[in-house]
Amino acid sequence: MKQMNEGRFFEDFRLGETIVHATPRTLSEGDSAVYQALYGTRHLLQSSRPHAEKCGFKDRPIDDWLVFHIVFGKTVPDISRHAIANLGYAEGVFHAPVFAGDTLSAVSEIIGVRQNANAKSGIVMVRSTGHNQHDETILRYVRWVMVLKRAPDSPAPETHMPVLDKVVSAEKLHAPRGDFNQWDMAAAGSTRAFDDFKIGERMVHGGGMTLEEAEHMLATRLYQNTAQVHFDALAQRDTRFEKRLIYGGHMISHARAMSFNGFENACLIAALNGGKHVAPAFAGDTVYGWSEILDKAEIANRKDVGALRLRHVLVKNCGIEALVDCQPDDPAVILDLDCWVWMVRS
Amino acid sequence: MKQMNEGRFFEDFRLGETIVHATPRTLSEGDSAVYQALYGTRHLLQSSRPHAEKCGFKDRPIDDWLVFHIVFGKTVPDISRHAIANLGYAEGVFHAPVFAGDTLSAVSEIIGVRQNANAKSGIVMVRSTGHNQHDETILRYVRWVMVLKRAPDSPAPETHMPVLDKVVSAEKLHAPRGDFNQWDMAAAGSTRAFDDFKIGERMVHGGGMTLEEAEHMLATRLYQNTAQVHFDALAQRDTRFEKRLIYGGHMISHARAMSFNGFENACLIAALNGGKHVAPAFAGDTVYGWSEILDKAEIANRKDVGALRLRHVLVKNCGIEALVDCQPDDPAVILDLDCWVWMVRS
Amino acid sequence: MKQMNEGRFFEDFRLGETIVHATPRTLSEGDSAVYQALYGTRHLLQSSRPHAEKCGFKDRPIDDWLVFHIVFGKTVPDISRHAIANLGYAEGVFHAPVFAGDTLSAVSEIIGVRQNANAKSGIVMVRSTGHNQHDETILRYVRWVMVLKRAPDSPAPETHMPVLDKVVSAEKLHAPRGDFNQWDMAAAGSTRAFDDFKIGERMVHGGGMTLEEAEHMLATRLYQNTAQVHFDALAQRDTRFEKRLIYGGHMISHARAMSFNGFENACLIAALNGGKHVAPAFAGDTVYGWSEILDKAEIANRKDVGALRLRHVLVKNCGIEALVDCQPDDPAVILDLDCWVWMVRS
Repeated sequence: MKQMNEGRFFEDFRLGETIVHATPRTLSEGDSAVYQALYGTRHLLQSSRPHAEKCGFKDRPIDDWLVFHIVFGKTVPDISRHAIANLGYAEGVFHAPVFAGDTLSAVSEIIGVRQNANAKSGIVMVRSTGHNQHDETILRYVRWVMVLKRAPDSPAPETHMPVLDKVVSAEKLHAPRGDFNQWDMAAAGSTRAFDDFKIGERMVHGGGMTLEEAEHMLATRLYQNTAQVHFDALAQRDTRFEKRLIYGGHMISHARAMSFNGFENACLIAALNGGKHVAPAFAGDTVYGWSEILDKAEIANRKDVGALRLRHVLVKNCGIEALVDCQPDDPAVILDLDCWVWMVRS
Repeated sequence: MKQMNEGRFFEDFRLGETIVHATPRTLSEGDSAVYQALYGTRHLLQSSRPHAEKCGFKDRPIDDWLVFHIVFGKTVPDISRHAIANLGYAEGVFHAPVFAGDTLSAVSEIIGVRQNANAKSGIVMVRSTGHNQHDETILRYVRWVMVLKRAPDSPAPETHMPVLDKVVSAEKLHAPRGDFNQWDMAAAGSTRAFDDFKIGERMVHGGGMTLEEAEHMLATRLYQNTAQVHFDALAQRDTRFEKRLIYGGHMISHARAMSFNGFENACLIAALNGGKHVAPAFAGDTVYGWSEILDKAEIANRKDVGALRLRHVLVKNCGIEALVDCQPDDPAVILDLDCWVWMVRS
Repeated sequence: MKQMNEGRFFEDFRLGETIVHATPRTLSEGDSAVYQALYGTRHLLQSSRPHAEKCGFKDRPIDDWLVFHIVFGKTVPDISRHAIANLGYAEGVFHAPVFAGDTLSAVSEIIGVRQNANAKSGIVMVRSTGHNQHDETILRYVRWVMVLKRAPDSPAPETHMPVLDKVVSAEKLHAPRGDFNQWDMAAAGSTRAFDDFKIGERMVHGGGMTLEEAEHMLATRLYQNTAQVHFDALAQRDTRFEKRLIYGGHMISHARAMSFNGFENACLIAALNGGKHVAPAFAGDTVYGWSEILDKAEIANRKDVGALRLRHVLVKNCGIEALVDCQPDDPAVILDLDCWVWMVRS
């Protein structure tokens, strides 16, 4: 019997190669509703059409992380089918909003390869771009993954690993469309605005969330992400973890939803500076979140929004009380995400 | 680390105070689809657009209980974040239908406060109103909850508890929009119409439904309801029940969906006279429903619909055979709901 | 207490009788989104609106199997409420595409009855038709089920069982609307086209999927399918299987989604020649799929698509390696489905 679509092993990636990923995907209000049910997000701009219109948008923009997951999902069959680990993200910039009815496509360029010392695997670094049906860039980010080799004795490619920006500098952010001068803080749930946040401040978001198999699988299939580790419990039995791994992006979306408490006026995501899935999450785990304000940046000619650089940390199974003293190197940490968000100014 | 949005304790509520709740929410056909998947409802008016149009509606109205849950969900962060129990509902009246594209907001007035004898908690009674983007009232109801005090030694407020109507009198119902003279009973699934129901009659709806963690959490997040008891299994371990409590409204929607068998032509909800979550429901429970006809009322100038007052009772884990002799005080009862529905006349 | 809507027992079916099923159902993009989350389908025509438009469709057609399940679901309360087993399908033909906004209704004709030797049950065969709001036929298929008798001593009806076509002959297929000459194989994920497939070829689709209670129940309620065996775990405890049975159609949709790997350009379903739910599936099972090419047919005046007759086989709990030698009579097989699909040519 024929095995279909094996996907690329480490030695199949060529530096500089561009891969156009399959299956463009039209997003609808239905996708947003399923996403709502999965994470319980409450940010005003994505929740209320009249308020989005008041800010100059034609409709509620689709949640930025839903957009990210859709783009990410397209890259999986080509990039990470034989990945052992998703190692990191960098230089992620959100360019333009997406609305119900838009169609997303994705393309990736191979920008780095390095074989591991054991010759059994190697690291592949790609820059992926999502664009809409008008070929407008929506999102661009770098990720790197550890990918199995097909054969340990196949020759190692020449090592090339670009040096990436640790942080997207504020000048490289794409200022958000729309005008937030008419933003309704009461409707958004808080008057905490850009000027109220201090660098170094940390806040606990409250709200533990226990994870379920059905939920992370619904999410991952919604994103057309086909990575088998999320779906096949039988195959996972023989692995180190012995159970299905939850797609890391599922945790990013939970972190964003939790961060509503404290960042009610963080209307959009501006950039993904970096992120680490420090440890895997499994069904049955209960996750909690806290955030730290890493930096702030005003944007030229915009008095309505500023950029807030946040570290979102998710921990698991520790109980919410433990968060008061939680540090990023706590063994309970599962996600350490560094991003810029657009925060409304008073 | 800072704790965000603590929510109101008992002593934070002021009689007569009005609270505008955060995050208006635009509903879409996507929300109705998720709702359909959660409860399996089959009422014609909400299921078929051409039949809704034949009755003079511009589209399928969104399920009344979905609307209720959305409004209810908005009140949770302000009213019941520190609630120990949701004690009851009264004087609930559905004013106008909601369609995909409408945006719901909610506001509550504190109409009653009474400290408990133990000084550790008190009862807060609120009248909540949901309105749409045109400031049209959609729904208004009273509920009362037991809320923790922040400190037992803080002074007790003056007790004030209004006397509520036991039942919404038929004259106070808002006659449904539309015209049901062209209602298609064959398409609706039954010819049992208003005149066929007798006061005192009881009927078993058939159909046990086993509850799942993933499902009630999807529902509760869809409603943007943030009550932690539904989500955080770890925190619940130290409570009396030792597990996640299912949002009571989830059970109301199951009761409504089950009641299709017998009340196929109950096209809309008219009023919520009262309701008690007699006992909590948990994942793994199997629930069954029966209903009793408590009253009937004809409506001035309307030959197409009448009001039927129903008691919906949900029981758990008893098997369907036990329903034949089931009484409202049966220990298996978890929900005892008293509402008026609009029933099509022949 | 009154038992509502008992449904038909074997002796209630009359040969030649036509049953108009209740509750027409308007489908929306929300339904497609929930379906996407349930199965993770990636076929281009259903995923991307611009690509559907390029083929002459006004929008993405709704997944054919979602349409099938909706029509099937309508027939359940009338046909299979007291079914012991769903025995088979035949002569299923997909006539026309369905789009978001369309409303589906269903009608069935009783075309066969035969009492079983034990006089406790009998076989009922029906031809069901789904049509849209313009009374256009969407789908027509035959299925037969074993239905309980109300009383063993009630008289047996005269046996009549029509002889059905083993396969829908290619001339009876309804050539798909649209024009696939502009089909974008790169966007669809593969260049394997009609001419690349050989009769007798078998392929493993990869991708095990572990089944969850919440997921199959969400699916089955989405389809307004009310068969109690899928929902009531308590009642199932006393049955042979001791747990909820998964709706067979849920497995058909998983088989279709898996078959993307290998049949990326199989844009639409043409016919359901036959199908057997060889064994039940339960939550916790992990399923895998392989397919065999049974036949090919060119269609008059169409150079853009051809018909490919496929056998989709689903197996459970064997691990993907076991599929290499899997035969249709393997004890792990749970679904053996024979259908025609429309495959894009070069």
